[in-house]
Amino acid sequence: MRIVIALGGNALLKENDPLSSEVQRRNLQQAMKELAPIVAKHEVVITHGNGPQVGLLALQSSQTQGLKSDPLDVLGAETEGMIGYLIEQELRHVLPPHKECATLLTQVEVNASDPAFEHPDKPIGPRYSAEEAGPLQGQRGWTMQNLNGRYRRVVASPRPIHILQQNVIEQLLSQQTTVICAGGGGIPVVCDAKGQCHGVEAVIDKDRVSALLAHQLGADHLLMLTDVDAVHESWGEADSRRFRCIAPAALSDYGFADGSMGPKVQAAIDFVEASGGTAGIGPLDKAQALLEGEAGTRVSGDCKEILWW
Amino acid sequence: MRIVIALGGNALLKENDPLSSEVQRRNLQQAMKELAPIVAKHEVVITHGNGPQVGLLALQSSQTQGLKSDPLDVLGAETEGMIGYLIEQELRHVLPPHKECATLLTQVEVNASDPAFEHPDKPIGPRYSAEEAGPLQGQRGWTMQNLNGRYRRVVASPRPIHILQQNVIEQLLSQQTTVICAGGGGIPVVCDAKGQCHGVEAVIDKDRVSALLAHQLGADHLLMLTDVDAVHESWGEADSRRFRCIAPAALSDYGFADGSMGPKVQAAIDFVEASGGTAGIGPLDKAQALLEGEAGTRVSGDCKEILWW
Repeated sequence: MRIVIALGGNALLKENDPLSSEVQRRNLQQAMKELAPIVAKHEVVITHGNGPQVGLLALQSSQTQGLKSDPLDVLGAETEGMIGYLIEQELRHVLPPHKECATLLTQVEVNASDPAFEHPDKPIGPRYSAEEAGPLQGQRGWTMQNLNGRYRRVVASPRPIHILQQNVIEQLLSQQTTVICAGGGGIPVVCDAKGQCHGVEAVIDKDRVSALLAHQLGADHLLMLTDVDAVHESWGEADSRRFRCIAPAALSDYGFADGSMGPKVQAAIDFVEASGGTAGIGPLDKAQALLEGEAGTRVSGDCKEILWW
Repeated sequence: MRIVIALGGNALLKENDPLSSEVQRRNLQQAMKELAPIVAKHEVVITHGNGPQVGLLALQSSQTQGLKSDPLDVLGAETEGMIGYLIEQELRHVLPPHKECATLLTQVEVNASDPAFEHPDKPIGPRYSAEEAGPLQGQRGWTMQNLNGRYRRVVASPRPIHILQQNVIEQLLSQQTTVICAGGGGIPVVCDAKGQCHGVEAVIDKDRVSALLAHQLGADHLLMLTDVDAVHESWGEADSRRFRCIAPAALSDYGFADGSMGPKVQAAIDFVEASGGTAGIGPLDKAQALLEGEAGTRVSGDCKEILWW
């Protein structure tokens, strides 16, 4: 089976963890142990986010005297290097010796006229007080947004439309090599009519690009691993129920929070409707059970009626 | 033919260029135009250095309050992402449509007891005055070295002994995909008896790792592209002569400067002696002529007597 696994932010950083590579490595050690049985048996692609990391690099890049800050495409490429290395190193520690794995830099095409460029809404980097946020907005030209009383920089998050390295990923998968790619949603580029592509200031959503990748690769499963046990019907409320099995059309009748479960649910619907495959949303430490439909939420055309946990 | 091309620092940054991604991109545009005819026709692997870039990231990483600096393996991985992305993007602009290319994160094993760890000698990052260098040595624990009156941080540069992603590189090359890898000499790791590898604080020489890679991949040619026209018998002297064709054994009778031509000459000798292939050292803008023996210095067992330009 061919499986795309999107690692949630908690695989790298738990709530309140300091943003050091040492901490991320320790968290990834545990994450890779959970994934080892799946990777050993199947054709697997692993993707990951980069929100906190790209924000930190942007901050560091903007603080160096006499040098212009690097744009978000270049900084995104740096996070693909950094996080991809940590994932690959820890994955190699748990793989059977005959299994190869590779981390591939990935450019992802977006549309230059995507409305997201006018409405930046993806938070990256550290949280700031109102007093700190003002100068950042003024001096650096960043868009700062008040999120639950703390300010964060928000950037454009356009929809991914094409993965430039898709054929290369296919080459590797077809030789049973596990591929780590599309890190941080991929490096955002826009392409002209001649196919010449250039980086843009954006950060693509990793769940969205994972759905596109899973579809383009003809994957059987898309697993989005996170820190919640399943998709909840009405999150945080007393009568909240957890979906076990649901068809994409039925799932799209429910509403979910923009910043958290919404993009995952939409990615699941998009992938299942486009490809006929199965999507799973559930906890990292139950990845194998999620794949088998024994944990989390399964989104599939085979779920004729909604099943609940 | 299979060819490993090591890009010299001048492909990314000319003397006195500011260290911005914009400038590096502009320089790479030119460099990739030079390489396009070779890449279109042959199985090519491109490697590159990262001295200035990894030094800058180390400086930025050490300046962030409340966070521990990232180690050189992690920062090296970031430069593989950043520089690899810029190279691949510019290379794609000049490749024929049927040619795929891929940038691969590359870990390179070194020996934990390599004497280089006791004798750091590879300069990275910016140049400092004596007044600036003192505090950096004291506060950050960096080894600073006086190089022609200016101080630079120097780090260990151990000998590469194995490239972990070698099989993956072979998988891609065998499908005619051009591979950008071993950037910055590769991410330095040491491995235990069970094959478990961990990053170390070092920066590997890119010419040395290119020679190893060329040998392991069975390459026909190793091209080291730089900003001098050829290897000179006695650089800078009035009677200086330029080698055109020389056998490795004959070349090893001459002495060359440690920090500049020495490592390239040694890499050429190592590769040609180990593999029977041909090495070329010459200018980036004559890469095609260098490959054909019509420019620069060719090191080959076929050079029965020394030829001069």
